[in-house]
Amino acid sequence: MNILVTNDDGYFAKGIAALVAVAKEFGNVTVVAPDKPQSGMGHAITINAPLMVDTVDVFGSDVVAFKTSGTPVDCVKLAVDKLLSSPPDLVLSGFNHGSNASINILYSGTMSAAVEGSIEGVASIGFSLLDYSEEADFDGSQSIARRVIQYIIDHPLPKQRLLNVNIPKLPADEIKGVKICRQANAKWEEDYKERFDPRGKKYYWMTGHFENLDTSNDTDIWALEHGYASVVPVMFDLTDHALLAAMPEFESVLLQ
Amino acid sequence: MNILVTNDDGYFAKGIAALVAVAKEFGNVTVVAPDKPQSGMGHAITINAPLMVDTVDVFGSDVVAFKTSGTPVDCVKLAVDKLLSSPPDLVLSGFNHGSNASINILYSGTMSAAVEGSIEGVASIGFSLLDYSEEADFDGSQSIARRVIQYIIDHPLPKQRLLNVNIPKLPADEIKGVKICRQANAKWEEDYKERFDPRGKKYYWMTGHFENLDTSNDTDIWALEHGYASVVPVMFDLTDHALLAAMPEFESVLLQ
Repeated sequence: MNILVTNDDGYFAKGIAALVAVAKEFGNVTVVAPDKPQSGMGHAITINAPLMVDTVDVFGSDVVAFKTSGTPVDCVKLAVDKLLSSPPDLVLSGFNHGSNASINILYSGTMSAAVEGSIEGVASIGFSLLDYSEEADFDGSQSIARRVIQYIIDHPLPKQRLLNVNIPKLPADEIKGVKICRQANAKWEEDYKERFDPRGKKYYWMTGHFENLDTSNDTDIWALEHGYASVVPVMFDLTDHALLAAMPEFESVLLQ
Repeated sequence: MNILVTNDDGYFAKGIAALVAVAKEFGNVTVVAPDKPQSGMGHAITINAPLMVDTVDVFGSDVVAFKTSGTPVDCVKLAVDKLLSSPPDLVLSGFNHGSNASINILYSGTMSAAVEGSIEGVASIGFSLLDYSEEADFDGSQSIARRVIQYIIDHPLPKQRLLNVNIPKLPADEIKGVKICRQANAKWEEDYKERFDPRGKKYYWMTGHFENLDTSNDTDIWALEHGYASVVPVMFDLTDHALLAAMPEFESVLLQ
């Protein structure tokens, strides 16, 4: 089995090393990851600049690894088109240092890389640990990842589907299990902080807090708050099919 | 009615001027747009750098306008949190120079700004013309935009929903009408081009072509290829609810 591993924190992050270690148990691993932190890059791609690529040797002699100047999505595209000799059987993205539950999936470079893997037709999983620390402990995350990877090998995902897996910040033996969930309805409430440069010109730093608008017990946020790892099955068709079905009247009005 | 207008091509693009002209017919317009092209930035946000902001005077004396160093999503967040005195009633993003139909919604800064508007709880529409030219003719786009905006004023969208509107590259009187559609299943097939720097080091430029995998007649790509403007109702819950319902067995296996 050929496995592509990427992330958004950069090839040097502790999280990707921990995920590569698990991936090696399942097959041949190639890493194509950003050469610098790319958190919050969402589904960004590099259109008007070239991508610089270098090999790196930080994952052991059995792993071919590249760092690129691109975004996480660029890494997947470049890997599939150029750097891999054949398409991968599995794309793993992570372990992200920090939550990608709920609405964070949209902002996350880690999850966007997994989405891109599924667009390319490859089974894909994004993994995130709810701990932003550079020295986060990934033991529990590795245990969850092993089980989820084995499961989708035994029970393949439908085409163009992926999983968003988040793991609570708990010792491995205190994680209660895995919950299959939907994405919680939530948002970030921004609070931009004003500063002034030496010439008196105002500028802004983004800060904010996460606001969960969704209190039911079938969401990823609920699972994580109650000690479970969350697994959300994800698709990239953003059509609201229910609204679409209700809109033929809209069409007839607009056609007048 | 207070209307926020943004885009991803930058505040100086012909497309945003054309959209502001239409927006003025419906209310008070504020522009918060990138100070440089931000195409392909997807849902990227600026986490580790400050946002520079300046007023610009290119939309007439009746429009307050700002350029920012941020992404399109940053523009919407900063507008809602700081630059607007009250939340907008409508977010309009565009006119994009180039298609955002089908899978392009994921890569598009223009559409991600509209998605962010809907996350903020504001009715939002992204508009794109299938013409990449800087000197594109937006007459037909303006006519379509007027009708779509009036429609959602008369028939408000449900909360957290938005529209992805694409307009074919045709003279205004040759556009056949508007089709309500789903997002076509398609992908970009990349073909990275290798180059060598003066020291012999290889690097890559992204090129590629759009590949429509979806031949049925209810998609945005079909509508556009047949002379219609396409309107796709969009939501940002990426959960695959059908797969979710089929996965309880997954949970019980993983819990063992």
